[in-house]
Amino acid sequence: MQKQGLLIVVSGPSGAGKGTICKRLLEKNPEIKISVSATTRLPRKGEADGVNYQFLDKRKFQEMLEKEEFLEYAQVYDNYYGTPKEYVFENLEKGYDVLLEIDIAGALQIKEEFSQGVFVFILPPSLEELKSRIISRGTESKEDIEKRFGCALSEIQQVIKYDYAVINDNIERAIEDVEAIIRAERCQVNRVYEQLKSRF
Amino acid sequence: MQKQGLLIVVSGPSGAGKGTICKRLLEKNPEIKISVSATTRLPRKGEADGVNYQFLDKRKFQEMLEKEEFLEYAQVYDNYYGTPKEYVFENLEKGYDVLLEIDIAGALQIKEEFSQGVFVFILPPSLEELKSRIISRGTESKEDIEKRFGCALSEIQQVIKYDYAVINDNIERAIEDVEAIIRAERCQVNRVYEQLKSRF
Repeated sequence: MQKQGLLIVVSGPSGAGKGTICKRLLEKNPEIKISVSATTRLPRKGEADGVNYQFLDKRKFQEMLEKEEFLEYAQVYDNYYGTPKEYVFENLEKGYDVLLEIDIAGALQIKEEFSQGVFVFILPPSLEELKSRIISRGTESKEDIEKRFGCALSEIQQVIKYDYAVINDNIERAIEDVEAIIRAERCQVNRVYEQLKSRF
Repeated sequence: MQKQGLLIVVSGPSGAGKGTICKRLLEKNPEIKISVSATTRLPRKGEADGVNYQFLDKRKFQEMLEKEEFLEYAQVYDNYYGTPKEYVFENLEKGYDVLLEIDIAGALQIKEEFSQGVFVFILPPSLEELKSRIISRGTESKEDIEKRFGCALSEIQQVIKYDYAVINDNIERAIEDVEAIIRAERCQVNRVYEQLKSRF
């Protein structure tokens, strides 16, 4: 019997640093597969199909949606974004762990469908730090910053729906926390019991 | 608010190597406290009170038993063995993680009383290896070996009642698994939620 891989869902409010954590985690653990989202928006300069996103036309996306081929999806203005099931489930079946970096709404949709995933919430060290991280991106107006901060604040309340909370006050420590979570989950009795039964 | 420590309960059949794992774990992580069992049996040569065991007379043990001052206890022939609550709870309250190396019957008693503990089952890599480890101790008759092996086999079936299973095919890897489990448990949302609420 082959052991199924883990679906590791990493999310958190913007400014918490989930992107950096996932990037470094994959660099350190190249055996982990990253799930690439599908979108109907056009590629931006420098974006490659299958790397940043899987770029689909609206008709194809709609077709997949009707066939329930997404783990989660969202519409943002005129465009759709979604996580195709096929890549995720194929790799899990092969025994690979699959990492998914996703916003909170998406993560909670996935949890409905696939509760055996490992749901990790990345938190900023403090609200002050979160605000200064949002400001330091420097691309937004004061109004946008306030909006983003308010949104992050309400998103943080969703942490209760997750399995793990990792406070990103030190990037290396946060990555090690996520690595420990993955390693520990691999030892969970309910995940390995079938294997053990055949062994003992 | 101070965060409560974790009660880490490590058990498994004899020959699985739980003793070595716990010893090395404590050497590598001196901040973890080890719970010392109480017993009414007499100290053997080289055993020190409060190190190997807390040596109590039967009257004192009985008195503690009546006051429900043990997390678990057992009678083996004429002697009693037990885990005093006081040391464990005092240290958990102070925020220290407490390690308890204990047999399976004791671990399951503790789980009844303190399900928020972290229950780790150490497994041998295979039944063949378990048998050869029991034999290589060399202190027992063939009959005793068979008895011990049969006992271990039925004990392994109890793994389903634990949170985690660690296969000890490589001692360093097994220790790292237990370390990862401890680290991951410290990130569990249900353990840190109160702290997070006061922070965000």
